[in-house]
Amino acid sequence: MVCDTLAIVGVGLLGGSLGLAAKSRHLARRVIGIGRSVDRLIEARELHAIDEFTTSISEGVANADFVIFCTPVDQIVRQILDHANAFAPNAVLTDVGSTKREIVEQLECANLGTARFVGSHPMAGSEKKGALYATADLFKNRVTIITPTAATNANALGTVRSWWEAVGSKVIELTPENHDRAVAFVSHLPHVVATALAASVSMDDLPIAAGGFRDTTRVAAAGPTIWEPIFRANREQVLGACRAFQAQFQEFYQLLEADDAQGLIDWLAEGKRVRDALGS
Amino acid sequence: MVCDTLAIVGVGLLGGSLGLAAKSRHLARRVIGIGRSVDRLIEARELHAIDEFTTSISEGVANADFVIFCTPVDQIVRQILDHANAFAPNAVLTDVGSTKREIVEQLECANLGTARFVGSHPMAGSEKKGALYATADLFKNRVTIITPTAATNANALGTVRSWWEAVGSKVIELTPENHDRAVAFVSHLPHVVATALAASVSMDDLPIAAGGFRDTTRVAAAGPTIWEPIFRANREQVLGACRAFQAQFQEFYQLLEADDAQGLIDWLAEGKRVRDALGS
Repeated sequence: MVCDTLAIVGVGLLGGSLGLAAKSRHLARRVIGIGRSVDRLIEARELHAIDEFTTSISEGVANADFVIFCTPVDQIVRQILDHANAFAPNAVLTDVGSTKREIVEQLECANLGTARFVGSHPMAGSEKKGALYATADLFKNRVTIITPTAATNANALGTVRSWWEAVGSKVIELTPENHDRAVAFVSHLPHVVATALAASVSMDDLPIAAGGFRDTTRVAAAGPTIWEPIFRANREQVLGACRAFQAQFQEFYQLLEADDAQGLIDWLAEGKRVRDALGS
Repeated sequence: MVCDTLAIVGVGLLGGSLGLAAKSRHLARRVIGIGRSVDRLIEARELHAIDEFTTSISEGVANADFVIFCTPVDQIVRQILDHANAFAPNAVLTDVGSTKREIVEQLECANLGTARFVGSHPMAGSEKKGALYATADLFKNRVTIITPTAATNANALGTVRSWWEAVGSKVIELTPENHDRAVAFVSHLPHVVATALAASVSMDDLPIAAGGFRDTTRVAAAGPTIWEPIFRANREQVLGACRAFQAQFQEFYQLLEADDAQGLIDWLAEGKRVRDALGS
């Protein structure tokens, strides 16, 4: 057991998977799901991702010693600050948000009574949405980044680290700033590129699209409601990553325009070198 | 049986898979592998992708009524023209090259005796190379494009169509020009984008890369030796596809720079619309 009562705010793919992991690995005695849609909460309970539910954050977190926010990145800070007095004494709070600098800056120094916040970002997910796609092993063998600062409470940090290790993650610590820079490249930029690629193609040409197009555009199926806040919360870093990509793409364009065979080979080899380092 | 003796020039992933499909579906009495590396030909024979082999194209094609060229797109025309007198009477020739205009233009009107060429492009493959990864079902439920013109011999076209249907493909006919334009978008552009994306990322950030980055960059692992000739053979179309992508990407950049929430949502929704039409 990592905690007694776990509250999950936002029971979609990630929240649902955390609930399933908590139940199947016996990490919490009780799991409370908190959300806006009763239908979706009932579904999550039927999937055994949560034991009980409420649509009230105040009620849901009141007796939870561990709370995980799985809501869009532009809602997390407000949801926590609006319920600053609702948390149980010494409650540990974390999140799964894809950006960390703004969230950590605003929450670590906020007055949350004796509750403490630590930023997390599990590098797991899917273009699929909803608890229906949740699995207990979503975080297994995946990296979870936690983002402690000088202001982070050591006990809370220990709990959060234990939690992610207990659901099967490899835990990496980064500063919130380093996190945001790195994910701009390995997560946010791929989403921009995949979406721009999908939008470039005519519907008429889709019948001949094969595995390459399918893989390269897969993440574009994720929802605008998740990604618009992520891009805006990590604006400067995402713009920087876009400029880096743009330089690579432009280099290809110029090499092909110049019909530069050796230049194209070298350019292709550089991308292959990085991709090969990742493994299949 | 689609043919008596099938000769496969270039026994890698595609050629090996064609051989396996021919054997397992009883589409040819005999399969001859033709290649430069005896070691790789021995490997292909051990995998039962071919029955016998030779390093001589002239010898290999001499008694074959059906020949499939699975060599890089910048070698196919020369290999066929250099052996114009070597083909068996009324032999049907095709290829699996990723570009078609130049190849079809140069081969359909060439003097090949009574042999006839028809252009093909199976939309199947992998970033993996070599007969070791070959499978008899590589073409099953995949689209194969064939590119007849006014000059195409009707009997040869019938044989080529029957062949691809027999290995399990759905056959689509396009003009060579329409083929090259469409694949520039759904196949060549994704390769550029995936490679530029991989090359944009620092090796230090790879440990936190998850499924999104992995999928979006997967095709970048394919070899420069395959792709450099494809890009050059389809230069104008690829440059055009790059400009279309560039416009989409630039639109995102400007929307994010302007912090335009609704614009970002609309932009993301458009990419999702196309990707959703493709299915998962």
